[in-house]
Amino acid sequence: MTDPQEAIDATAAARATERDPRIEERTAGEVQEGIPFIGAGPGDPGLLTVTGRRLVEAADLVVHAGSLVNSDLLEAYCADAEQVSSVGRDLEELVPLMRDTYEAGRTVARLHSGDPAIYGAAVEQMDALEHEGVPTYLVPGVTSAFAASATLRTQLTLNGVANHVAFTRPQGKTLDPDDDHVGAFVGMGDVTTCLYLGTHAVGETMDRLLADGHDPETPVAVVYHASWPDEDVVEGTIETIGERLETAGYRASAMVVIGDAARKAGYERSYLYGDWANRGPDEGEADD
Amino acid sequence: MTDPQEAIDATAAARATERDPRIEERTAGEVQEGIPFIGAGPGDPGLLTVTGRRLVEAADLVVHAGSLVNSDLLEAYCADAEQVSSVGRDLEELVPLMRDTYEAGRTVARLHSGDPAIYGAAVEQMDALEHEGVPTYLVPGVTSAFAASATLRTQLTLNGVANHVAFTRPQGKTLDPDDDHVGAFVGMGDVTTCLYLGTHAVGETMDRLLADGHDPETPVAVVYHASWPDEDVVEGTIETIGERLETAGYRASAMVVIGDAARKAGYERSYLYGDWANRGPDEGEADD
Repeated sequence: MTDPQEAIDATAAARATERDPRIEERTAGEVQEGIPFIGAGPGDPGLLTVTGRRLVEAADLVVHAGSLVNSDLLEAYCADAEQVSSVGRDLEELVPLMRDTYEAGRTVARLHSGDPAIYGAAVEQMDALEHEGVPTYLVPGVTSAFAASATLRTQLTLNGVANHVAFTRPQGKTLDPDDDHVGAFVGMGDVTTCLYLGTHAVGETMDRLLADGHDPETPVAVVYHASWPDEDVVEGTIETIGERLETAGYRASAMVVIGDAARKAGYERSYLYGDWANRGPDEGEADD
Repeated sequence: MTDPQEAIDATAAARATERDPRIEERTAGEVQEGIPFIGAGPGDPGLLTVTGRRLVEAADLVVHAGSLVNSDLLEAYCADAEQVSSVGRDLEELVPLMRDTYEAGRTVARLHSGDPAIYGAAVEQMDALEHEGVPTYLVPGVTSAFAASATLRTQLTLNGVANHVAFTRPQGKTLDPDDDHVGAFVGMGDVTTCLYLGTHAVGETMDRLLADGHDPETPVAVVYHASWPDEDVVEGTIETIGERLETAGYRASAMVVIGDAARKAGYERSYLYGDWANRGPDEGEADD
């Protein structure tokens, strides 16, 4: 097998000069030839897409993201398939496994948590497989921020409160302090900032926001395991959430929503119903 | 019926002092009592969630977002239901319609495009209904940015290229110039900026970015009707995309993806497979 980084560089170099014809020929959601990289959604089996479910049910081999994918989902849709967790396995092991299984004529599906476009590592596997001659494609999914928002019974954009949304991570093992924009997003005042990170890092992130002079009363909601049976919500502010989380004792990954939208406070009725937006998308702006 | 803005203010005031007990008692994705506000996904019927499909199939009345929801989806899942488009109808008409239908013992579902948390206007309808005694809840969906990303065969976050994602809109009918952060997001350099807007506004947005000194070579991909049968992709840069879109002639809503991730250029293999992240979510950071 080619070195994965070489395969990645080769496909990236090709992409810089010519467009993959499938970008033009295929649409998102369409079932294509090859191995689908599927967004499993936030956890609840019902939050997988209809197409994602169909593909997983048809698969002989399902490679999944281990504890990040709800075992109830695997049980519901692919109890009879061979299931392999990617945890503890590197590209050098996963890529030949998927390639050989696919080339043997068996059906392979790759399940990432949430949507693969957000803090996934799908395309590096896809590029390595494509370089080995195995076609791949993406099937989008529901990201955990949307499940968190549903749990909180709010929207991430909210008229007069939050005009924008940021998906981000604070500095840490995978991000230099220079590339940490949490304070910049929160400081804009009308951005709902969604942190994808382990609860262990919430306290220090809030301490940095406090040290930088951000309003300590800014609402923060942490949704642990959004849409899972053990889902839990801890609410507070930039000042209080760290201690409240420590009291709750969660150590695993969670969705941290910072901003007034987390508390659905003081929004105004939009103009979406009763004014310009009802003239349709040609003249108004896009709905989501 | 109560004035919708009064109902919104009343529920917002209540939320400020006490938490809705359902936030604690219910999980995202769970089927609850009342009217579900469902994310229809980007367009393709297969990109609706399993639970969303079940709820829509069971509904006697489906209120949907008109041309923003693919008619193929309505045809596939609720051809026999009464279908009402929200286009041209204000809260004063929609809320009593949903309330009366629900109170008559019929099943009601409300379909928003994409995910209701992103530039939807779901919670104002929900608050108005709740104030009238009708319970409601949210069912998350796939937003069009994720479909666009799947079409482009890339990720919105990409190791060494894009560490963050912004969902935003430029100044216009619904946003003051002071609240336009497009330049700020693009200027951060490692943010994939996703604009939810009509293609007619792309040119002027790019002109502002050029005037503010942003790199004219920054990649921009516009995905028109992501996941619909007439999906199309126009690629260019901050400098060229406006004219290319004008040549293509699209006037409707589209997803505009700004940043190197749109072209999947020059990313590095992540550490997700083969290093610390495989120690699991307790010690590593969260996957999506």
